[in-house]
Amino acid sequence: MTDFNDLPAHVWPRGAMRQEDGVVTVAGVPLPEIAEGYGTPVFVIDEDDFRSRCRDMARAYGGAHNVHYASKAFLTRTIARWVDEEGLSLDVASENELLIALAADFPAERITAHGNNKTANFLRTCVRSGVGHVVLDSAQELELLDMVARGENKVQEVWIRVKPGVEAHTHEFIATSHEDQKFGFSLASGSAWEAAVAANNAENLELTGLHCHIGSQVFDAAGFNVAAERVLELYRRIHGELGLVLPYLDLGGGYGIAYTEQESALDVDAVAKDMLAAIRECAEDLGIATPTLVVEPGRAIAGPSTVTVYEVGTTKDVHVDDDTTRRYIAVDGGMSDNIRPALYEAEYDSRLVNRFTDDEPIASRVVGSHCESGDIIIEDAQYPADIAPGDFLAVPGTGAYCYAMSSNYNWFGRPAVVSVRGGKVTPMLRRETVDDFLAREVN
Amino acid sequence: MTDFNDLPAHVWPRGAMRQEDGVVTVAGVPLPEIAEGYGTPVFVIDEDDFRSRCRDMARAYGGAHNVHYASKAFLTRTIARWVDEEGLSLDVASENELLIALAADFPAERITAHGNNKTANFLRTCVRSGVGHVVLDSAQELELLDMVARGENKVQEVWIRVKPGVEAHTHEFIATSHEDQKFGFSLASGSAWEAAVAANNAENLELTGLHCHIGSQVFDAAGFNVAAERVLELYRRIHGELGLVLPYLDLGGGYGIAYTEQESALDVDAVAKDMLAAIRECAEDLGIATPTLVVEPGRAIAGPSTVTVYEVGTTKDVHVDDDTTRRYIAVDGGMSDNIRPALYEAEYDSRLVNRFTDDEPIASRVVGSHCESGDIIIEDAQYPADIAPGDFLAVPGTGAYCYAMSSNYNWFGRPAVVSVRGGKVTPMLRRETVDDFLAREVN
Repeated sequence: MTDFNDLPAHVWPRGAMRQEDGVVTVAGVPLPEIAEGYGTPVFVIDEDDFRSRCRDMARAYGGAHNVHYASKAFLTRTIARWVDEEGLSLDVASENELLIALAADFPAERITAHGNNKTANFLRTCVRSGVGHVVLDSAQELELLDMVARGENKVQEVWIRVKPGVEAHTHEFIATSHEDQKFGFSLASGSAWEAAVAANNAENLELTGLHCHIGSQVFDAAGFNVAAERVLELYRRIHGELGLVLPYLDLGGGYGIAYTEQESALDVDAVAKDMLAAIRECAEDLGIATPTLVVEPGRAIAGPSTVTVYEVGTTKDVHVDDDTTRRYIAVDGGMSDNIRPALYEAEYDSRLVNRFTDDEPIASRVVGSHCESGDIIIEDAQYPADIAPGDFLAVPGTGAYCYAMSSNYNWFGRPAVVSVRGGKVTPMLRRETVDDFLAREVN
Repeated sequence: MTDFNDLPAHVWPRGAMRQEDGVVTVAGVPLPEIAEGYGTPVFVIDEDDFRSRCRDMARAYGGAHNVHYASKAFLTRTIARWVDEEGLSLDVASENELLIALAADFPAERITAHGNNKTANFLRTCVRSGVGHVVLDSAQELELLDMVARGENKVQEVWIRVKPGVEAHTHEFIATSHEDQKFGFSLASGSAWEAAVAANNAENLELTGLHCHIGSQVFDAAGFNVAAERVLELYRRIHGELGLVLPYLDLGGGYGIAYTEQESALDVDAVAKDMLAAIRECAEDLGIATPTLVVEPGRAIAGPSTVTVYEVGTTKDVHVDDDTTRRYIAVDGGMSDNIRPALYEAEYDSRLVNRFTDDEPIASRVVGSHCESGDIIIEDAQYPADIAPGDFLAVPGTGAYCYAMSSNYNWFGRPAVVSVRGGKVTPMLRRETVDDFLAREVN
C-alpha cells in the first residue's frame, strides 16, 4: 500500500484533497466539520464530481440525451435535477422511482421505464405522464401495455429487452451464458423476435428500439461488443423482415468503477468507441441512418461522487490464534448503510479524514455496529495502529447502491445525505429518527 | 413434495388453515381479504402464534423472565407490549431499539442491552432509564460505562460477553472455531477473565452474569452444550478466585426454525433440559444456588408467526437450454422486503392462498420486482403450472429479519404489517409511500 494519507484519485471524489493540517476536504469543505454538524454516519456527495461524470459520459457517447442515468443507483429530487441540468436522460425501474422523477419535474419524454414485473398502475402512470420509452420485458406486459395505452388513447413508444446470452462478471464475461434469469426476451429461443413482431402488430405500441444489459461492475469491455453484435443481428432481421428502421439501440450499463486503490475503472471511452463503430458499420451495411446508441450508467456516475464519513468507536485487538492478532475498528454505521460487502462480498477502502497518521500498519478489520458478525465494511486491511475512538474514517465510492439499498436494521436511522460544492454544504436528506419509525405505527 | 394445497404445520403460523373453498385463513381471517384491504406485499402476524411461542420458551426455561426476546428480529411498540404481557424480558442491540421499547413502557429492569460499539449516549440512556443489564463487549466499553454510571451516581449491573470458541452453523458446529469476530472477550486468550476482574474492581459496575452466543439458525444442540461447559469454566474461576456467585448465565439464542417443509426446528425443550442440567450440576459442585439461565430467542418466537402475502404479476417461461424451461413467477415485492435469500442464501417455501390448485408441478422460480437478477425469493421449486397473474402467494416464516432488514431499494415502500387474532385484523405498521421519502428531502 502507498501512504495511508494519500487519497487515490481514481477512488475518491474529484474534489477531495488532504489539507496541510491533515484534514480532508471535499469541494473545499472539511469532512470533520460535516461530521460534527450533521452527525455520523453521513453521506457526502461532491456535486461537481457527479456532474463531471455526467459530462464525461455525454462526451463519450456523443450527446447527453443518449446517456440515461440509472436512478436505482441513487435518486432524490435533487439528483434528478442535476441529471436534467446536465442534459442526461433518466432510467426508472419502479413506479416510485418514476413518481420521484416526475416530482422533480424531470421531462417525462427523457425517461425510460424498466422492470420485470410492471403493474398496470405503473404502466398507466408511464403512458399518462408521457414517458419516452417503456422497455418491454415479457409477452404479458406487451399485451397489458397495449391495452393500457389503448385505454388512454395513446401510442406508447417501446423498446424490447433482449437477453444477449452474454453474462459479464467482474473480470471476465461468458459469451454463451445460460439465460436462466428473469429479465427480457431470449434471442436464442426466438422469443425476442416474436416480441418484435407482436410489438409491431400492436395498435397502441410503436417499436422504436432494442435493449440489453449484460451485468454489473463489468471490467471486460469485450462483453459489450459481443452483446452489441448479437443485438444487431436481431436489429438486421427486424429491418429485413418487418421493414422497420429502429432509431434506438440501448446497450445498458454496468461500467465497473474502482472501489479500492488496487482496482481501475473500466475505460468507458474505449467501450463507447467500439460500440459506436459496431452500430455505424451495421447501419452502413443496411444503408440506413445510424441508430442512436443509448447507455445506462448509474454506478459510474453516482458511485465515485460520494464518501461515507463514520466516527470510530470501539477498537479491539482480537486474538486470532497464538501468533496473530487483528485490530477490529468499529464505526457507528455498518450493514444498514452499506449492505454491499455482506451482500456481494464487495470490497472498500477507507482513510482517516481528521488528521495525518504515520503509525505502523497492522492487520485490521473495519466493522459496523450491528448485532451480526457478518456486519463488516472492510474485511482485511493494513491500517495504522493509532486509529482511535473519535477519529473520523471515510469510505469512498459509496454514492451508488448504498443509501439506495439501506435498511433500518437494529432500527438504525438512515444517515443524513449532504452535497458539497464550492465550499458550501447543502443538506439533501435528513437523518431518520425514532420518531419516523414510531410515526409508521398505527397501533 | 406433498400436496401443494397443504400448509406444513411446522412452517406455517399455528392459526393458519385452508378453508373448504381453498382460501387460506390465519386466525380466522382470509389472507386474500387482507391483501385486498391493505395491498400487497403485506406482512400478516398471527398474534396467538407469537404469544404461544413466548409461552413455550417460558415453559422450557422455567420462567418467562428468563427468556429475553431478541428485538432485533422484529420490534414495534405493539410487539414490545406482547412480550411484556407474556412476562418475557427483552434484549436490545441499539439505542433506537431501547428507545422504542421504552416508548412502549417496557419495564427497563427487564431489558438487557447488547452491542459491540455502544456509544456514550446509548450507555447513558441505559443507565438513566434503569436498564436491568448491560452486556459488556470490550475493555473500552467497560471503562466508558463505569464512567457514565459514576456520572449518573448509579451502579450498573453488567454481564460479560465471552467468545466460547464455538461456532455453530446450520447443521454442525465447530468446537475449536477461531475467534476472529467482533463480539465479546476471548476465553482462550484470557481477556474474558481480565474483564471479569476489571468489572469486579470498577466502582460503578456490578458484575452479575456471563453471556455467550454461538450463532444463528442452529440445529445442532451439541454446540450449546459445549459453549455452556466453557462458560461455566470461567464461572467457576470467578467463584473460586474472586469469590463472586454470579446470579445469571445467559447462553444466547440462535434456535433454528423450519423455513421449508423439509426442515425441522431445533428441539428447544431438549436444549433447555441439557443446559439447565449442566448449570445445576456446576452449582451443586460449587455448593451454590443454581444461577438463572437466561436465553435470547428472537427468530424462534417471531419467525414462524408471520407470512408475507404477495400478488403474482408476470409469469414467464424461460428457455434454460434446449431441453429445459423454467417458469418465472414474479411477485410485487422481493429483496426489499426479504433480503435473506440474497444475503444468506436462505430458502423459503410458499403457497397459493386464494384457491386450490391441482395442476401439474413444473420447475419454477419465484422472483421479486427489483431491477437486479439476484432478486430471487425461491430459487428452485416445483410449483403448479396454473399459478397466474392476480393469484396471491404467501411465504411463511417471515416474522424475523424480514421487515427488520427491509430496504427501500428501487424506492419500494415498506409493506404494511398487520396482526390477526380471533377473526380480527389490527394494523401495526402502515405502508410507506413516496411522500415518506420526499418528506426526508430537505432540499
